[in-house]
Amino acid sequence: MGLIVQKFGGTSVADLERIRKVAERVIQTVRQGHQVVVILSAMAGTTDHLLKMAHQAAATPDKRELDVLLSTGEQTTASLLAIILKSMGYAAKSLMGFQAAVLTDHDFGNARILDIETKRIQHILAGGTIVVVAGFQGCDTEGNITTLGRGGSDTSAVAIAAALNADLCEIYTDVDGIYTADPRVCAKARKLSAITYDEMLNMASLGAKVLQIRSVAFAKKFSVAVHVRSSFTQEEGTMVVHEDAGMESLVVSAVTHDKNEARITLQKVPDQPGVAAKIFTPIAQQGIIVDMIIQNTREEGQTDLTFTVPQSDFQRAMQIERRIAAEIGAETVIGDENIAKISVIGVGMKNHSGVASIMFNTLSRENINITMISTSEIRISCVIDEKYAELAVRVLHTAFGLDCEKPAAGGQVR
Amino acid sequence: MGLIVQKFGGTSVADLERIRKVAERVIQTVRQGHQVVVILSAMAGTTDHLLKMAHQAAATPDKRELDVLLSTGEQTTASLLAIILKSMGYAAKSLMGFQAAVLTDHDFGNARILDIETKRIQHILAGGTIVVVAGFQGCDTEGNITTLGRGGSDTSAVAIAAALNADLCEIYTDVDGIYTADPRVCAKARKLSAITYDEMLNMASLGAKVLQIRSVAFAKKFSVAVHVRSSFTQEEGTMVVHEDAGMESLVVSAVTHDKNEARITLQKVPDQPGVAAKIFTPIAQQGIIVDMIIQNTREEGQTDLTFTVPQSDFQRAMQIERRIAAEIGAETVIGDENIAKISVIGVGMKNHSGVASIMFNTLSRENINITMISTSEIRISCVIDEKYAELAVRVLHTAFGLDCEKPAAGGQVR
Repeated sequence: MGLIVQKFGGTSVADLERIRKVAERVIQTVRQGHQVVVILSAMAGTTDHLLKMAHQAAATPDKRELDVLLSTGEQTTASLLAIILKSMGYAAKSLMGFQAAVLTDHDFGNARILDIETKRIQHILAGGTIVVVAGFQGCDTEGNITTLGRGGSDTSAVAIAAALNADLCEIYTDVDGIYTADPRVCAKARKLSAITYDEMLNMASLGAKVLQIRSVAFAKKFSVAVHVRSSFTQEEGTMVVHEDAGMESLVVSAVTHDKNEARITLQKVPDQPGVAAKIFTPIAQQGIIVDMIIQNTREEGQTDLTFTVPQSDFQRAMQIERRIAAEIGAETVIGDENIAKISVIGVGMKNHSGVASIMFNTLSRENINITMISTSEIRISCVIDEKYAELAVRVLHTAFGLDCEKPAAGGQVR
Repeated sequence: MGLIVQKFGGTSVADLERIRKVAERVIQTVRQGHQVVVILSAMAGTTDHLLKMAHQAAATPDKRELDVLLSTGEQTTASLLAIILKSMGYAAKSLMGFQAAVLTDHDFGNARILDIETKRIQHILAGGTIVVVAGFQGCDTEGNITTLGRGGSDTSAVAIAAALNADLCEIYTDVDGIYTADPRVCAKARKLSAITYDEMLNMASLGAKVLQIRSVAFAKKFSVAVHVRSSFTQEEGTMVVHEDAGMESLVVSAVTHDKNEARITLQKVPDQPGVAAKIFTPIAQQGIIVDMIIQNTREEGQTDLTFTVPQSDFQRAMQIERRIAAEIGAETVIGDENIAKISVIGVGMKNHSGVASIMFNTLSRENINITMISTSEIRISCVIDEKYAELAVRVLHTAFGLDCEKPAAGGQVR
């Protein structure tokens, strides 16, 4: 008998019929002899609906009050699941963030979990009752309702699993696991049975949005075994774990692509101390996240500076940089939205040289030009022309030996 | 400068536009120099929608979980009002039941307020901030969310006003005050400038559903001055207060009618000890509330027993009584849904004889037959044929000198 935390996302609780399916899944686990803590998201679409209402109420809704409003979404699903579980003859109790004692800081809308006092949860579990916790929400030291930011229910689940020292944290979602590449782009992609926290961290930030990145960092820190799997099938998904000698010894585990960035280049920037700060501080102040940065010295005293930002912030960033360029005496600002970032990821990369050269040679053979490169310990990313993105994923998937024998019939991302 | 509690009902917060109007009303009071605590209901229709969803989830939803679900309604309106107040430049903070420290017993769905620890509310008010409390909800000693039953926001408002020792509790609703009779029935009805708690208690239970009856009892107990008025006009409404020498010296303050009862008669009941208990215990156990009871001795050893129940429980009550009649050997069970209860109410009645005779004579002159009579210290109620209800109200209204000079143009119930 173990203690299992099961988290179900918005599409898994989208209506009463699906919540009933969640109840069946939970009961199945209970009947296997486990104690279960369930973490729920709001019904798919609810958070967006509430956000829209708040923005109709005020152009800039107060953050504290917005959290009070948004937290009703998970309150609704948690109480409904408890109602259904009880009607099926199983003892169940819902707990909101303040009742589950999920203590956070005061950063409304993006709060961080400081501590979880598990006494109440453990007391309820000990009585043979299923605990249903409203995800995404917590409570600060002054008793204010806080929320953890988009996808925060993943973090709720992992943090509660860590605090309870649970045997497993299952994340039920609308995909059936983590793939070596996006199956819609690469027919030979296959589901990974396991992936390391570090690989997942690199995946999450690159557009494979299966798990909120903060939850993965949390899982790594507290060694929470996470199982990402589908709500709609009984198939095994992908385990996210520490690196292990027994894992598949692949140099590269996955190839990802991301078309949601845009590139901005400031040409002929006077090469003076402090100029980089002048370029990047104003956009950082606007909350725009810069991903890759490259600087090319052009000639004596002049340099070109290129960086990428999310496409949704592109127009704002261009406006800011046109103003900055005039201030610092740069010649021109060039923008390009038609780019894609292709990455290869793998913990095996640490012990193998030559991954970069295989990547560059493979793209070169297809006449795909690389315009930016960035690397981390277990990842190499290249920016290329957007129209080559799918081709690049397929040829790299083959080059790094990731292709499955034949495309799996059921292995599609839903 | 005073402390004013303002409660707005479901129709007053039915959508964002109306919540904006509530904000304007609150700000108007703040600008007059008052401290304000606002109590809100859920948007009109929300509680019914949530109840429906819960009953789709389970035939008999768990009561604790139902309260968690229902409380989201007031959570939504309270946060939206705080968002709007802040966007209009006024400091405001929403508090849920647990945050406002509205401590209740454990009777989910119909909890009673035990205590309100006002320290937090007072601290926020002292900082010049408007406090917006989610009505209808509280929290028991174990930190469970509870609700106070239908119309519970009135009780929230009065209880918080009492705990804060507020100068006034304003109940904003969709009628503009308490009338001497229903203006839809009696064109000469006029709005009362004041009414006593006791009169209001008798009114509330007789179908003039402006205030939850429990809130009136609470207001009386703690001497909370209550002002019932319209959200949609600036007109003065009706003050509900203790009896006062300065009040209008009317013998009868109002004439009410109620068509929502039905009558059941058991004929030729053997007149034995314990027979009344056999007749009434089973329907009490089913939660059916019996209002009036009359017993007529028919002849030696036989009696007729007549009583009224809410029309919504009529069929169930008839089934039960048919079974009981067979058991105790009563001859027949007769039911009648076409009845109306007409009442005259007034604290002045205590000092005046002859109210009953005026009532009976007035009805008799119109050939209206009285089939049941019940009285309290300040009320006389008669059951008559339903079709005479409106006529009875009008002639009694005239007979007790309640008619206004000419019908007020704006004085209609909305």
